[in-house]
Amino acid sequence: MSSMKAPRGTVDLLPEETAKWQYVEKMLKDICNNYHFYEIRTPLFEHTEVFQRGVGDSTDIVQKEMYTFEDRGGRSLTLRPEGTASVVRSFVEHKMHGYADQPVKLYYFAPMFRYERPQKGRMRQLNQFGVEVLGSSDPAVDAEVIDLAMSCYQELGLNSLKLIINSLGDQESRESHRQALVDHFMPYKDELCSDCRVRLEQNPMRILDCKTDKDHAAMDTAPSVLDHLNAYSEDYFEKVKNYLTLMGIDFEVDANLVRGLDYYNHTAFEIMSEAEGFGAITTLTGGGRYNGLTEELGGPATPGIGFGMGMERLVMALEAEHVAIPSENELDCFLVAVGDEADKASVRLIHDLRKNGIQIDRDYQGRKMKAQLKAADRYRAKYVLILGENEVDQQLVNVKEMKTGNQEEVPLNQAVAYMQEKLSGGNSNE
Amino acid sequence: MSSMKAPRGTVDLLPEETAKWQYVEKMLKDICNNYHFYEIRTPLFEHTEVFQRGVGDSTDIVQKEMYTFEDRGGRSLTLRPEGTASVVRSFVEHKMHGYADQPVKLYYFAPMFRYERPQKGRMRQLNQFGVEVLGSSDPAVDAEVIDLAMSCYQELGLNSLKLIINSLGDQESRESHRQALVDHFMPYKDELCSDCRVRLEQNPMRILDCKTDKDHAAMDTAPSVLDHLNAYSEDYFEKVKNYLTLMGIDFEVDANLVRGLDYYNHTAFEIMSEAEGFGAITTLTGGGRYNGLTEELGGPATPGIGFGMGMERLVMALEAEHVAIPSENELDCFLVAVGDEADKASVRLIHDLRKNGIQIDRDYQGRKMKAQLKAADRYRAKYVLILGENEVDQQLVNVKEMKTGNQEEVPLNQAVAYMQEKLSGGNSNE
Repeated sequence: MSSMKAPRGTVDLLPEETAKWQYVEKMLKDICNNYHFYEIRTPLFEHTEVFQRGVGDSTDIVQKEMYTFEDRGGRSLTLRPEGTASVVRSFVEHKMHGYADQPVKLYYFAPMFRYERPQKGRMRQLNQFGVEVLGSSDPAVDAEVIDLAMSCYQELGLNSLKLIINSLGDQESRESHRQALVDHFMPYKDELCSDCRVRLEQNPMRILDCKTDKDHAAMDTAPSVLDHLNAYSEDYFEKVKNYLTLMGIDFEVDANLVRGLDYYNHTAFEIMSEAEGFGAITTLTGGGRYNGLTEELGGPATPGIGFGMGMERLVMALEAEHVAIPSENELDCFLVAVGDEADKASVRLIHDLRKNGIQIDRDYQGRKMKAQLKAADRYRAKYVLILGENEVDQQLVNVKEMKTGNQEEVPLNQAVAYMQEKLSGGNSNE
Repeated sequence: MSSMKAPRGTVDLLPEETAKWQYVEKMLKDICNNYHFYEIRTPLFEHTEVFQRGVGDSTDIVQKEMYTFEDRGGRSLTLRPEGTASVVRSFVEHKMHGYADQPVKLYYFAPMFRYERPQKGRMRQLNQFGVEVLGSSDPAVDAEVIDLAMSCYQELGLNSLKLIINSLGDQESRESHRQALVDHFMPYKDELCSDCRVRLEQNPMRILDCKTDKDHAAMDTAPSVLDHLNAYSEDYFEKVKNYLTLMGIDFEVDANLVRGLDYYNHTAFEIMSEAEGFGAITTLTGGGRYNGLTEELGGPATPGIGFGMGMERLVMALEAEHVAIPSENELDCFLVAVGDEADKASVRLIHDLRKNGIQIDRDYQGRKMKAQLKAADRYRAKYVLILGENEVDQQLVNVKEMKTGNQEEVPLNQAVAYMQEKLSGGNSNE
């Protein structure tokens, strides 16, 4: 029954995989904490208008890729296709621009949904980690956000990273560049793809991003946004670059780096993986500044900047660079019980150990002692606790340390303290 | 613009709230780890048939409450209304019944979606923590699952808990009870509500659960499921109760405890909060055994048991019992920089401190020193680092411990080591 499989473009994360994700997520949370960002969680769906206005009606996302449906009350809802619009909607709704301290620095972990043809690294449900900083137009904030993104990858152990930055300038600079692009491409209009002909009207900057027309001769000679920055925008971009240099962060400027979404201005950046074996998909994250977005979503003018990174690609990059992820694949204790009385005694002992923070498992298949010991091996138990009839009679438990083979008989009522002592040296569960 | 608000029945979790959730989730994960459960993550939506078959066509959830929509390829998809069907679908799809060690013990954290009238403690997007244990019909597993659920609430600090259990028996017992219920209620058919008249045909056990007919005289005299358990089911239930007693867990047997979902058998349980101020919603979690479900979802017969608990209700219960949640509302360091040169030096220093695991923030609003110090107070900074022109000239930073008022001048190139030393005593970030 194909309907009894996960829907196309989605996957189950099974225990081996979730152990990796837990590790990565904890690391990212700790880094966000060091940068003094706070977590925000918004609903999985929004009123469709949030994305129409917040992502942009002319984008591929809104036009082709959204999961939009009517609820039973006839409202048009859409599963979140990206993170920024929801967070900004929440910022406006909760009047966070009124907080005493600005900017408000937020991060999120959240599944996103895009109806695309599934392929490696491109799923219909993808998981994203991202940050948004709202309420400051200090170029040092741009540098901090880029620094945070780089730190995430570096702290996780990625080495083959490349940072690319660009400036799209403020509204005046963008307008000047836009006019130059229209003037430049208009003579070639009939040679461009149908999408680009629409872009020429709606958002000519996105022609520079076109996969179909990328080899057209007019691309090479297209006007650079950097030649159209006004004095304020140029100074802003200089400051961002200086801050990155002060932090010791290498970067390249690429005037062709544009963002697919309508609301970006000033700083845009991407971080790529140059690891061998990572394949054609090299962009790990992209982000940038979006000073006009809060107004679009009904709030007061508030500057903002952020990035979103795909968790799936991050995990792929770790694998491509063979980064070892410490996984908790050892079990503290496994209890082997033989006989009815031992079974009963073990129930209480296991309960008490767990309640005191000790990880322990047992057999639930009625297996013989030998098979239970094999299970303990498969679980990589550090200690095996054995309860047989003799032990129960004497109110003892036999504790075997698997690494050394040492065995000790411990009174049942001292077993918790004994195991806590034994495991406190190198407990892998914290 | 009402469309610029979170959809009805959904909420944003803002930083103050997410701090609580992070604490609760970490605690629940650690407990699951002690019980040797592994995390699984399934997609947010499934083919609709998964829930029609796995939850049951006759249930309110499937008939009235699901968010069902067609994707752009014409498939009927449904946002997950509960956790069990998805996990069991995944268990079957990935053939986990073939794993060497059974049962497979899984837990999940996931948003669920039900189209209901929003009210206190009942949201359209709700967040659920749950576990599923598949592959064993040992009654000790039932006790372990109940023990785990109780531990979750107890470890978090809830005291006013009440555990109610029941047995629905195996298929034979259920069938016998079903017939007795039909015989009992049929004479009153015309006096029952329209829902119950349908239930009388489809699932008469659910009449016992009816809110409309709960005062009908026939309810009190309805046959008890416990009088219809066959020998196997009675023995099974006795063992579960004995294991709970061995663990020292108090419980009450309530023969009227039935589960709203079709696929339950044997053990059913609920944990209620009896805390004052918690109001009318007292059920914190419900769960039970569902030995027929894997076959319903296309897999081989495999016993299963689990529970799901609403995170929103859990957080409400913690508030009702005034449980203090340790929140990380202190900031390690706040840096106050005055002047352009200090601003530049601070960028590097902040970067280095964060990269070395130290939490630090700074001003991004160009405020004067006094206002920056006030911000440090609001953030409850433990240390304030001050960089002025003099300090930069001498390559020093002034470090003030806010608790004691002590100040020290530290060479810039030793600041990381100095702060690590200072904070290693009682770092609140781990």
